[in-house]
Parts: sequence; C-alpha cells; structure tokens
Amino acid sequence: MNVVEIIRKKRDQESNSPQEIRHMVQGAVEGEIPEYQVSAWLMAVYLNGLEAEETRSLTQALIDSGRTVDLSHIPGLKVDKHSTGGVGDKTSPIIAPIVAAAGGRVPMVSGRGLGHTGGTLDKLESIPGFRVDLSLQRFTQLVEECGFALIGQTDEFNPGDRILYALRDVTSTVESIPLIVSSIISKKVAEGIDALVLDVKTGGGAFMKTPQRSRELARALIEAGTGLGKRVVALISDMSQPLGRAVGNALEIRECIEVLRGEGPDDLRQLCLELAGYMLLLSELAPDIASARDLAREQISSGRALRALGALIEKQHGDPRVVDDLSLLPGPRSEFEYTGPQSGVLHEVRALSIGRAAMLLGAGRRTVDSRINPAVGIEVLKKVGDHVEEGQSLARLHYDDESTLQQALEEMESAFFISQEAVEAPPLIHDVLE
Amino acid sequence: MNVVEIIRKKRDQESNSPQEIRHMVQGAVEGEIPEYQVSAWLMAVYLNGLEAEETRSLTQALIDSGRTVDLSHIPGLKVDKHSTGGVGDKTSPIIAPIVAAAGGRVPMVSGRGLGHTGGTLDKLESIPGFRVDLSLQRFTQLVEECGFALIGQTDEFNPGDRILYALRDVTSTVESIPLIVSSIISKKVAEGIDALVLDVKTGGGAFMKTPQRSRELARALIEAGTGLGKRVVALISDMSQPLGRAVGNALEIRECIEVLRGEGPDDLRQLCLELAGYMLLLSELAPDIASARDLAREQISSGRALRALGALIEKQHGDPRVVDDLSLLPGPRSEFEYTGPQSGVLHEVRALSIGRAAMLLGAGRRTVDSRINPAVGIEVLKKVGDHVEEGQSLARLHYDDESTLQQALEEMESAFFISQEAVEAPPLIHDVLE
Repeated sequence: MNVVEIIRKKRDQESNSPQEIRHMVQGAVEGEIPEYQVSAWLMAVYLNGLEAEETRSLTQALIDSGRTVDLSHIPGLKVDKHSTGGVGDKTSPIIAPIVAAAGGRVPMVSGRGLGHTGGTLDKLESIPGFRVDLSLQRFTQLVEECGFALIGQTDEFNPGDRILYALRDVTSTVESIPLIVSSIISKKVAEGIDALVLDVKTGGGAFMKTPQRSRELARALIEAGTGLGKRVVALISDMSQPLGRAVGNALEIRECIEVLRGEGPDDLRQLCLELAGYMLLLSELAPDIASARDLAREQISSGRALRALGALIEKQHGDPRVVDDLSLLPGPRSEFEYTGPQSGVLHEVRALSIGRAAMLLGAGRRTVDSRINPAVGIEVLKKVGDHVEEGQSLARLHYDDESTLQQALEEMESAFFISQEAVEAPPLIHDVLE
Repeated sequence: MNVVEIIRKKRDQESNSPQEIRHMVQGAVEGEIPEYQVSAWLMAVYLNGLEAEETRSLTQALIDSGRTVDLSHIPGLKVDKHSTGGVGDKTSPIIAPIVAAAGGRVPMVSGRGLGHTGGTLDKLESIPGFRVDLSLQRFTQLVEECGFALIGQTDEFNPGDRILYALRDVTSTVESIPLIVSSIISKKVAEGIDALVLDVKTGGGAFMKTPQRSRELARALIEAGTGLGKRVVALISDMSQPLGRAVGNALEIRECIEVLRGEGPDDLRQLCLELAGYMLLLSELAPDIASARDLAREQISSGRALRALGALIEKQHGDPRVVDDLSLLPGPRSEFEYTGPQSGVLHEVRALSIGRAAMLLGAGRRTVDSRINPAVGIEVLKKVGDHVEEGQSLARLHYDDESTLQQALEEMESAFFISQEAVEAPPLIHDVLE
C-alpha cells in the first residue's frame, strides 16, 4: 500500500479506507512507516478531520495494535470512567472503590500527567509503597478479587496509541476530536470493558473551553464507543475552577480518602456520586440513576468503599493504614497562606493558574523527564461565589523549597479575581449525554 | 524557540515570523528539529499556505542554509533560466550557449530527473566523458571564461532545499505553490544570478495542468524573485504534447545540437529563441525583445552558439567532437516504428504517456536508485494538428531490450488520439508575465 497516496487522500479531503488506516497504524508500530510520514498524515487529519467511519477504523486499528484484556470469565458487566482531565480532578480513586463495593467491576488503566498536576498514577504513587506497574495477569486477578484495580499502561497495551500520542504531542496535533476520540476509546475498549462513563470537562482549565466544544467531543466519543458495541454515557462537568480543594499528589489522595470517609468538599463528592451512579446504572446494578446514586452514597456511609480502597492499596503493595491515618502520606516542609488583597466576592478561580503554580512547586512535570514531588501542592480554600475578606486566606501553598514558592506566588497573582458584584457559582454538571 | 508553537501557528492559519521560519530551516539542516516536526509543518503549510512575506522568509532561509556563489567579480549581469519541467523539455543546452555566445553570463545549476525522462544533468551525461560534478570554484571559472557552465547541485549548496524537498516527496506536500516557489527561487538566487527567465509549463504533461494554475505559480515566482531584488520574466509555455521530437537522453542532446545547427523541430527552436531572447533582454544586451530575439538567432546562424557548446563540453571533460559528429552519442541496439491505426487528424499526443513509455524503455528513473540508459528513448514524429495516414509512423522507439519495448508499447496505446475532425495546434507560448 502506498503511504504517500494515503497521506495525499487525507490532504485532499478524501476518505481513507479501513485498510489504509490500519496500514498507517501498523506501519507506525512496526517502524516500517517513518515518523515523518505519520506526522504529515496526523496534520492532514487534524486540518481535514475524519469521518465517523474513519474514526471507528482508527479506533479499531489502535485496539488491534496490541494486546487486549479478556475479562469475559469475570461475571457481570465491566465498567470504567474516563475524564478528559483538569486541575484537582481526582475522581478515580474515589469512584472505583465505590462501584466495586456496590458489586461493580472496574478495570481501570490510567495515565501519568504532563503539564500542570500529575495524573492518576502519580497521585496513587504518593501512597507509600503503592505500585501501578502490575502485569495484565495480576490486573485481571485483582479485578476479579477486589472488584477493581488501578494500574498504568504497559508496553504491550495499545502501542499504536502510545506512538501516535507521542508524535501528536510534538507536532501540534493534539486537539483534534477524531484523534482524541480514537485514543480514548481504543485505550478503554482494550481494557475489556462493556460500559464507559465519560467525564468531559469544560471551561478555562479544560482541554475544551466551551460547553459546546465539550458536547461535540462527548458526542463523538459516544458515537465511537457505541459503534464498537459499548454502553456509553457522558457528563459535561465544570472545569472553570479546580475540582475540590486539593491540587497536588498526596494532597489529592488525602482529599479522596476524606470523601470516602463522608467528609471532603461538596463539589468533588457530588461529582463522584454522579459518576459512580452512572457506572452502577450502566452495570445494571440499579434500575435508575436516582437509586444508583443512593447505592453509591451507601458505599460511603457504610464505610465499605473506604475499606475496598484500603484492601486494594494493600494488594498493590501500598501501606493500607493511610485510609485511617492521613499523616502517613508525605507532607511538605512548609506551608504558606496566600491571602486576598481586598474584600468582595470571588468571581474567578482560574484553574490553569492554580495548576501551573502547583507545577512550579513540584507537583507536576515541566518536561517528560521531570520528577514529581508528591508532598507539595495547593489547597484552594475559596470557591467562585464565596465572599472573602481582605487578608483572609484564599489558598494554602505546601512547599519544600523557597525558590519554587516564589515562582508559584508569581503565578498565583493571576489566579483569583475579586469584585464587589454578586456572582452565581457555575453549575457543577452542565449536561448528561447518552 | 518552541517548534511545537511554530507548527501550531501555521496549523491555525497564523503567520510564522522570519525568525520562526529560519529556525525551522536551520533546525532541519542541523538535524536539531526532527523530521516528524518538519513534515507536520510542511503539511500545515501545504493546507494553509504561506503569505508572500513568509514565502520570502522561507526563500531567504533556504539560501542562507548553505553556500552561495559570488559572481560579482565577473562583469555584466548574470542570468539563468528555470523550467518547471516536462516531456522533451531540453532548452538548457541550447539557450545557455546562445546567451553566452551573445555576451551573456549564464551560471546554470541543474537537477536530475525523477519519473519519466531524465533531467538536464542526465541528458548532458549522455555526451561521452561529460562531467557535471565540478567544484563551485571551477564553475565560477567557467562562467568567467566560457560565459556559461552546466553543473549539478553540490552538497554545500542549499542543503535546506535538499532536505525539505526529500521530505515533501514522501509526505504528499510537493504541489504547494509557496513551497515550489521558495525551492526554485532559493536555488537560483544562490547561484549568484541577477536575472531569471522562468519557463512555466502548462498542460497535461506539466506539473500545472491549466494556464490559470501556471499563471498563479508564475506570479508567485516573480513576486518572490523580485522581492529578493532580481529581474524576473515568466513565459507560460505549452506542455500538452512533448516539446520537439526527441524524448530520451542522447536523443535529446542530438536534437539540441540540431537546433544549434539551425535545424531541428520548429517548436523547440521557437521556444529557445524566446527564452534566450528574454535572457538577453534582462541582461541588457538588447534594447527590446524583438532585437533580443534577432541577437539570439544570429548566434545560431553564425555557428557561434554551437562552437560555444563544443568549447564548454571540452572544459567539462566531454568529447567536443559530438557537435560535429552525432554518431559519437550513444545509440540503441534497435528501433521500432510505431504506426497509427487509422487515418485522420492528430488531436492529442499525450506528453505523460510518451514520458512514461520512454521511462519504461530505460530513459528515466523508476526509483531514486534506477540507472538511466542514455541510448534509449522515443522520437515523436507527428504533432497535434498533423494529418496522419493509416500505417504511417507516429513515433520511433529506440530500445535495447525486447521486454522494455513491450512494456513501452502498452503505454504508447494511450499516447495518440486520432479523429476525423480538424483541430488547431495549441499555442506554443500562452503568455509572458513580467
């Protein structure tokens, strides 16, 4: 098959056949198609798009590029959640144990973060001893025994996506809906799931800045997922301000445990109940979303979800006592109270600024090779719509090193916007698409 | 400078600054920007275009990527011709000696052919002993002593263009006007020229199939050249049928010598007088195009141009006796007369079919590594508008090998179209743009 001709077709807004798309993905994986041809094709895809049929072909080709997990011997429907990501977004370690405790099966394969704060794997690794590099065999065992498992992608898993993603990252071809969709859906389908709940973020701290773009992405994700025979629901949730209070790895795990104890911030708890509720609904463990939400809530109030997390932490070589003793999580050398310059109503808490400030403290990676400091981060103490007093703490910066604090404080200058006029808090969940 | 951001700007139809374009070219040459980033940028340029200012920046960056020839110590204006190429296009070895014989200075750096027939260098190498790989120093000497020289690109010369061209060839980003323009103009300006005559071909055998597209390319070439302070004229000339009769390397050199002897086909002679005329006009060796044409014609009738070619052949290590004895050029083992199936008027002589048939005989390269057979090729004996009789020869195939002949004959089936209705010959020169 002629690669130059495959690129030309996409360049000239013609369709690529399933065979052509498969050839491109396989050639990229086997190293037979040079990266410069793959990246020229990716740019043509970025600018000219893919039809739904082409997106499905790409998704299937990515799935077929590596191993897939077979969970069919485990009874019940397997369900996962995918979030498009944001600042303070930490729902996975909360909802996976909730759904597992209610009888669901959650085979969760997560990623690391690049840019502002860490990814789910980085957060989990702030639990002393916790390991995310389990074999697929052990992963399957844990899903069977504990109802869930939280691991990272292995090399044998979807190499096509890994290669395309690495190229997209350095060729300005990331923000393309068909490329995002095929990447997300292929990764999730390869886990062996039957159903998927999508948390598509919207707002300044999200990939998609407007509810309209977020809905567009959600609809394309639903189309690709259902096209492959999966049950899919998408929530459009707010990312104009950070989710919850904590931004930073150990801080976020602490907040997850707080929510599982029935404490923690309202917005995070509410979103988790909604996501877990839809996961239980798609798993056919509740007849409707209201009872599914109740079922999720019971897993918290009974303490079952917290115990499920503790049990899994132990199985994944972590210290299970953290669920009872938060002081076992790494803590920073110092804290700094960031105070407001004036009284008034908080109009904006810019998620991206908070994320960048947390990264500067060491909570995220500046480059692929950066090491994350699990102990540092930011607690955002006020939310949009809150009344604040001059000199009152808006945020608490957890830091190890004075020079990173100074950099972070500069970034914090653009994080809060206070005005005298009243403002309504943004809705937490903008929409649910099925 | 952030390469991902340079690519993103072009992707989003923003302009790249001169510094950004220079960074991209230099990074590609020095190997600091990986090919996958260069090719993603090239596809974004292909699809979103370049402004005139960006094209000028790219051209300048390509020129500056390597050595340039300094001919300022040689008196008089230095002029060259560039053709966008076609089947039977062999004007360089005719017009360079004409212009030199009339007192002009022609520093001509040519290319090899890929696809149908050979490039100027391949044709010249069919002269026994002729060498095109001279040093730039020797090249400069010859321009000074003989008034012209005919060499190939050296490695030190415009490496930026060589790298971008190689990438474009394998990423479906060849047919982009700003990329074509910057490639052509940078190569020519680096030769040290003051003026340039462009032969932009139009029709089925050309890169640009319609006069409109050819004019568009010509105007962009003129804009880029004059933007760099050069005098530029562009002819739009016909390439719906092959130029002249000969297609194939030694056959074409034979035809060049015939034209310089005052013989040869009318269309080739006429186009050469026009091109040489404009070169002399831009060189200020004639006050207007009519007298420039007369001056060119005199170089043929006096035999001065033929002697100039003979002298240069000797300087470039070739056998100068070929200009007097065409039998010294390599000849084929056999000839085959290709006859017409019916009487009527020739409506089409498809240049691309003739070119492909010649390539199949061995006159062109199928792949970059193919060796050219200088002895083989095709003589096209009839032109569009000619009356032909059933059984009359339309073409003569010069071949060495029976199997290549059979392949070429299959291709020849689509070369000629005969009808009973009258048809006018296409104009040789469609337009002149200054």
